[in-house]
Amino acid sequence: MDPITLKPERRKIILDCDPGHDDAVAMLLAHGNPDIELLAVTTVVGNQTLERVTRNALSVGTIAGITGVPFAAGCDRPLVRSIETAPDIHGESGMDGPAQPESNIELDPRHAVDLIIDTVMAHEPGTVTLVPTAGLTNIAMAARKEPRIVERVKEVVLMGGGYHVGNWSAVSEFNIIIDPEAAHIVFNEPWPVVMVGLDLTHQALATPEVVEKIAAVGTRPAQFVLELMEFFTKTYKDAQGFDYPPVHDPCAVAYVIDPTVMTTRKVPVNIELQGQLTLGMTVADFRAPAPADCHTSVAVDLDHGKFWNLVTDALVRIGDVNPSAAVSVDAGAANS
Amino acid sequence: MDPITLKPERRKIILDCDPGHDDAVAMLLAHGNPDIELLAVTTVVGNQTLERVTRNALSVGTIAGITGVPFAAGCDRPLVRSIETAPDIHGESGMDGPAQPESNIELDPRHAVDLIIDTVMAHEPGTVTLVPTAGLTNIAMAARKEPRIVERVKEVVLMGGGYHVGNWSAVSEFNIIIDPEAAHIVFNEPWPVVMVGLDLTHQALATPEVVEKIAAVGTRPAQFVLELMEFFTKTYKDAQGFDYPPVHDPCAVAYVIDPTVMTTRKVPVNIELQGQLTLGMTVADFRAPAPADCHTSVAVDLDHGKFWNLVTDALVRIGDVNPSAAVSVDAGAANS
Amino acid sequence: MDPITLKPERRKIILDCDPGHDDAVAMLLAHGNPDIELLAVTTVVGNQTLERVTRNALSVGTIAGITGVPFAAGCDRPLVRSIETAPDIHGESGMDGPAQPESNIELDPRHAVDLIIDTVMAHEPGTVTLVPTAGLTNIAMAARKEPRIVERVKEVVLMGGGYHVGNWSAVSEFNIIIDPEAAHIVFNEPWPVVMVGLDLTHQALATPEVVEKIAAVGTRPAQFVLELMEFFTKTYKDAQGFDYPPVHDPCAVAYVIDPTVMTTRKVPVNIELQGQLTLGMTVADFRAPAPADCHTSVAVDLDHGKFWNLVTDALVRIGDVNPSAAVSVDAGAANS
Amino acid sequence: MDPITLKPERRKIILDCDPGHDDAVAMLLAHGNPDIELLAVTTVVGNQTLERVTRNALSVGTIAGITGVPFAAGCDRPLVRSIETAPDIHGESGMDGPAQPESNIELDPRHAVDLIIDTVMAHEPGTVTLVPTAGLTNIAMAARKEPRIVERVKEVVLMGGGYHVGNWSAVSEFNIIIDPEAAHIVFNEPWPVVMVGLDLTHQALATPEVVEKIAAVGTRPAQFVLELMEFFTKTYKDAQGFDYPPVHDPCAVAYVIDPTVMTTRKVPVNIELQGQLTLGMTVADFRAPAPADCHTSVAVDLDHGKFWNLVTDALVRIGDVNPSAAVSVDAGAANS
Repeated sequence: MDPITLKPERRKIILDCDPGHDDAVAMLLAHGNPDIELLAVTTVVGNQTLERVTRNALSVGTIAGITGVPFAAGCDRPLVRSIETAPDIHGESGMDGPAQPESNIELDPRHAVDLIIDTVMAHEPGTVTLVPTAGLTNIAMAARKEPRIVERVKEVVLMGGGYHVGNWSAVSEFNIIIDPEAAHIVFNEPWPVVMVGLDLTHQALATPEVVEKIAAVGTRPAQFVLELMEFFTKTYKDAQGFDYPPVHDPCAVAYVIDPTVMTTRKVPVNIELQGQLTLGMTVADFRAPAPADCHTSVAVDLDHGKFWNLVTDALVRIGDVNPSAAVSVDAGAANS
Repeated sequence: MDPITLKPERRKIILDCDPGHDDAVAMLLAHGNPDIELLAVTTVVGNQTLERVTRNALSVGTIAGITGVPFAAGCDRPLVRSIETAPDIHGESGMDGPAQPESNIELDPRHAVDLIIDTVMAHEPGTVTLVPTAGLTNIAMAARKEPRIVERVKEVVLMGGGYHVGNWSAVSEFNIIIDPEAAHIVFNEPWPVVMVGLDLTHQALATPEVVEKIAAVGTRPAQFVLELMEFFTKTYKDAQGFDYPPVHDPCAVAYVIDPTVMTTRKVPVNIELQGQLTLGMTVADFRAPAPADCHTSVAVDLDHGKFWNLVTDALVRIGDVNPSAAVSVDAGAANS
Repeated sequence: MDPITLKPERRKIILDCDPGHDDAVAMLLAHGNPDIELLAVTTVVGNQTLERVTRNALSVGTIAGITGVPFAAGCDRPLVRSIETAPDIHGESGMDGPAQPESNIELDPRHAVDLIIDTVMAHEPGTVTLVPTAGLTNIAMAARKEPRIVERVKEVVLMGGGYHVGNWSAVSEFNIIIDPEAAHIVFNEPWPVVMVGLDLTHQALATPEVVEKIAAVGTRPAQFVLELMEFFTKTYKDAQGFDYPPVHDPCAVAYVIDPTVMTTRKVPVNIELQGQLTLGMTVADFRAPAPADCHTSVAVDLDHGKFWNLVTDALVRIGDVNPSAAVSVDAGAANS
Repeated sequence: MDPITLKPERRKIILDCDPGHDDAVAMLLAHGNPDIELLAVTTVVGNQTLERVTRNALSVGTIAGITGVPFAAGCDRPLVRSIETAPDIHGESGMDGPAQPESNIELDPRHAVDLIIDTVMAHEPGTVTLVPTAGLTNIAMAARKEPRIVERVKEVVLMGGGYHVGNWSAVSEFNIIIDPEAAHIVFNEPWPVVMVGLDLTHQALATPEVVEKIAAVGTRPAQFVLELMEFFTKTYKDAQGFDYPPVHDPCAVAYVIDPTVMTTRKVPVNIELQGQLTLGMTVADFRAPAPADCHTSVAVDLDHGKFWNLVTDALVRIGDVNPSAAVSVDAGAANS
C-alpha cells in the first residue's frame, strides 16, 4: 500500500532513466509528490551500463519505499553508436557515494520497450506522460515498434539537450549525444515534446541553502539525497568546474507536477546527426515565431525556490521508509 | 501438413521480406526446396508500405500453399529516415502484375521483431539463419531489443548492398539506403553476415531461357512467377535499362540451400552513414587479405544455371496448390 | 590629397567587402574616421555577384570621396560551394535603394588576393588589420597562397557568424555559410580573430533616433546612408521580421577604431563543415575558460550610442564630396 | 637548347607534381617524349612537404637535363585539411633511394598558381593540358583565382582517385583524399577531366621485365629510374603488399602522348566530401550511359607493353645528360 495520499487527478508518468544521482532525485520527487502517479520505471544504458543503472534504480525504489510499480530494464546500448558512459560524473557504479541497499523489488520480466508500449496502450489516450531522463533509446524503440503510442501519449517531457549550452561537446548534451539517432526519432515524432535542457537545469543548482533544507528533513531518504549531492558536488567541480552541481533530472518531473516552475518557449527543435563539431546538438530555430503546428518547446527559466521546495516536500511526504534496508553495500567500493 | 518430403538436416531460416516480385520468388524457393525449413515469414516496409507488402506476403503464402508457418508484420518505417518505396520497380501494390488471391493465412499477432526473437531463442544456438531480403529495420530492432540473438543466430544471409554496384544512388543499393542506420547495426554485430549484393544479383537475370524453363513447369505457382517476371522485365527495362530483370532475393535463399551456387569472398564491410554521394554504401575494404576475425563476406560470381535450376526445381516440388484461391483481385488494378 | 586630418598612429586596415548596404556604411566609417588608414578595398562575391558588389564598392568610394586607395576585385565564387546571394536583403543590384553614381575610381589590375598579400607584405609586421565583412573566400585564398601573411597580419576583425544567433539557417550566418570552407581556413589559422557576429550586430539597429542623427548631418553622403537605411529597413522587416535593421558591417570597423565600443570574450571558435542542420555554424566552446593560446574571441555587447556616434562623426568629417557625381543611375531600376 | 628533336604539333602540358618516385618517371617521360612540350613544372605538398618535393623536382630536372622550362613551387598545405604525407611509400625525402644531385635549376619566382594561370592564358585556347600527378590544391586555387583558365585549358589529365580501388582508405586514393575539397573543385569545373586512377595504375607495375628493359638503356637517368624502382618496390611490398610497384604518375603523361595506351570510359565522377568511410572517394555513376555533356572520364585498361615502351623510349632519347651532376647527396641518408 502506498502510504501517500492520492489525489484523483494525478498525472500519470513513466520514468525512463539511468540512475544516476539526479535520476535518483527525480524518482524520489515522482514518488513523493501527490500529483504524480508513477506508472512504471524503466532503465536504459546511459550514465552507466544497463546492469548498473538497473541495480541503482531498484535500490532507489527500495530507499524510497516504492511498491506496486513495475521496474523494467531496456536497451543495453544505443541504436547506432557505441556505448559511452559518464563515470567521471556518476562514478563506477553510476551512483557512487551513498551505500546502496540490496533491493527487495523484482524486475518486471518484460523488456522496458514493451512495458512502455503496454502501459501507454492500457491507459486512456492523452493521459500518460513519458519522462525520459536518459538517452532516448527505449523511447525511440517503443515509438518504432508500436507507432500508435505516439498519438496516445500526452506528452514527452525529457531532460536532455540545450539550445545554447552543451556539456559533452561544445554544443551537445550527454543524453542526446550518446544516442543522437534515438533523439532524432523522438524529436521528430509529432507528439508534444518539452525539452528540459541544460539551459534550464544549469539553474537547478544544489546550493548550500538547498542542501541545508534537505538535511533538515532528517529522514533516511533525505540522508541518501545528501550523500548523492555530496558526491555529485565533487565530480561536477572536478569535471566541469561547477561550484554547485546542477541537478538535472528532477526538473523534468517538476515540470509535469507544475509547469509554472519554469518558463518554456515554443520553438522548432531538431537533432544534428552529421556534424563534426555539432553531433547531437538540439538545434532550435529562434529566427521567427514558432509555427502553429510546432510540437516542441524548450525550458528557459527556472523558479529555483519553487523547484527545490517540490523536492523537499516530496522527501517530507516520503518520510522514513525501509529503515532496515539502508545498511548495506557501498556502491563505490563494490565496483572498485 | 506440408506435402513436401522433409530431410532431417534441413536448414532453418526466417525470411524477412517486403514482397516484392523477387521476394515472392524467394518465398517460393524457400518453401519448395527440400533443404530449407521455413520457420517464419516476417515483413517490413520497403518496396511498398508495410500494409501492402504484408498483404503480398500472405498472398504468396497462399499461392505457394504454405501452412503452419507464422507470418508477422514488423516495422512500418525505417529507424531514422523517412519512408522511401519503389513503385517504379514493383508498382503501386508492391507486387503488380499477377492477380493476387485473398489469402487464407492469418497474421501472427506478434510483432515481427518479437517473432524473430522468439524463434531464434526457441531453437538451438547456431541453427537459425536470418534471410533478410528487404530493409534491415526488423533485424536491427531485434538485435537491439534482444542482444542474445546475435550469438545464437547461425548467420545472416541478406540480399542488399553491392561492393561495386549501386542502384538507388551511384554506389548504394535500395535495401541498404532506405534504412542505412539499420544496416549499420546489422553489419556491425559480430554474427556472420553474407552480403548477397547487386554484384551478384545482377547476374541472376531472368533471361528468355529461364522464363521458358519456368513456363515448362506448367503449374499455377509457376504461372504466377511468369506473370511476376513479365511485370518485372518491363519495369527494370524502363527504370534501369536492363534487358532482363535481375531477380535479387532468391539468390540469398539459394546461398543457404547450396553455398556453391555462388563464390563469396571474406572482406570487411561497413555502412556509410554520412556521405552526400555515398550514403548507404556497403564499403568493402579489399586492400589487404581479410583479418582472421572478419565476420562479413560478399557474394561475387553466380552459377546462373545452378541457381535457376534450384528455382525451377522448387516450383516443380510445390506443384499445383490451391487451385481455387488463384482467382481473385488484380493487384495492379486494385491500387489504380 | 585626403582632406581628412591624419593622426600618425592610425590603424591600417584592408576592407574586404561585398557592398551591400552595411558594407557601404562600413566603408564610410573607415574613410571618415581619423584613426583608420584604409590601405585597400577588396571585393568578393557575397551579397551579390562579384561584378555587382565591385561596381557598388566603386560607387561608394566615389560618394565618400575616397582617393589614393586601391580597389581590387577578388573571387567570383566560393571555394567549394555554389554561389548564394542575398537579393531579399540587398536587392538585385546588391545595394538597392539610393541612386548610384558612375564611379571615377579605376579598379586596380591585381586580383584582390594578390593586393591583400602585397599590402600585408609591404607593411611592417603586426601593423595591418584585415576587416572582412563578406564571405571569407579572398582571405582564405590569400592565406593559402602566401602563408607568411598569417603571422604578419595584426589581427582579423570580421563581421560574420554568431555564437547563439543565426540568420541563414537556425544557427548559421550568411557570411560564413556561403563559404564555410573559407571560414574554416580563416578561423583555424593562428592569427588573432575577432568575430563580430550576429550576437553583437543585432544590437546595432538603425533606430529612428539613429536615422534622425544621420539626417541631421545634412550632407550628400549622409543622405546616401539614409536611403540605404530606408531600403534596408524594409527588407529586414519583410525578410526577417526586424523592426529596425541591424547594420552589421561597420561594427567590425568600429571595433578596430575603438575596442571599447563593445565587449568581447576569448573563446575557441571553429566552423562546422559537415552538419545537416548546422553547416557553417561558428561553434564556440564556452564550457571552460579559454586556454591561454586561444586566438579567437567573439563580440558580446555593443555600446549602441558610442557606435552610432562613430558613424555620425565619420559622416561629419567626410562632409559634402563630389556633388556632381551623385546624379545618376538608379541601382534598383538598372537591374530590374 | 633542347637536344631532343621537336615535332611541330607537340602537346603542351603543365606537369603539377610532388616528386615522388613515380612523379620523377612522369617528368622523365614528359621530357623525353618527342610529342610532349613541357611548358612548366609546378610543385605542391603531397608525397612530402612542399620544400622537399620542390627540391626533388629540381633534382629530377637536373638529372633529366631539362632546360628552359620554368619550375615553380605552389601550395604548402591542402585547402582545408591538415597536411598528410606518404613517407611509408616515398621515404623521408619524398624520393628516397637514389642519390640526388644538387640542382642547377633556379626556381621561378612566381607562385605555382600564378605560373599555371600565366602559362594557360599566354597560349592559344584549347592548347594546354594540365597534368596533375599530386593533390589538386594548386589546380583548384588556379581555377578559383582565374576562372577563365577553365574554358581555355584543353583538358585535365590527372593521376588520382579510383572508381573501384582505394589505397589511402578502403575506397579513396592518396592524391584525392589529401585535399578532397580541391579535388571537388577540379572535378566540378566544366573542363574535360580524364581520371587516370588506381583502377588503371595498378596495372602499370614495374615488373622484372620492365626493370630489365630500363636497365638495358644503360644511361645515368635510366640508372636513376632503376634506383627509384628499387626503393619503390620495397615500400610498396612492405606498406601495401604489392609484388611489383604500381608506377602511377607517368600513366597520365602517357595518355596525353597516346590515348590508345589505355581505354577510357565517359562517366560522371564527383568527390565525396562528407563520408566517414568514403571521404575523398571519386564516386563514378555507371548506372546509365553517360549524358551527352559529361565532361569526366576514367581510365580502365592499360596496354602494359605500350606504356613501358613509351617510358623506355623516352629514356633512350634523353640519353646521358649531366654526368657531373649525378654525384652527390644521398636523399635517404640526408634525412635520416
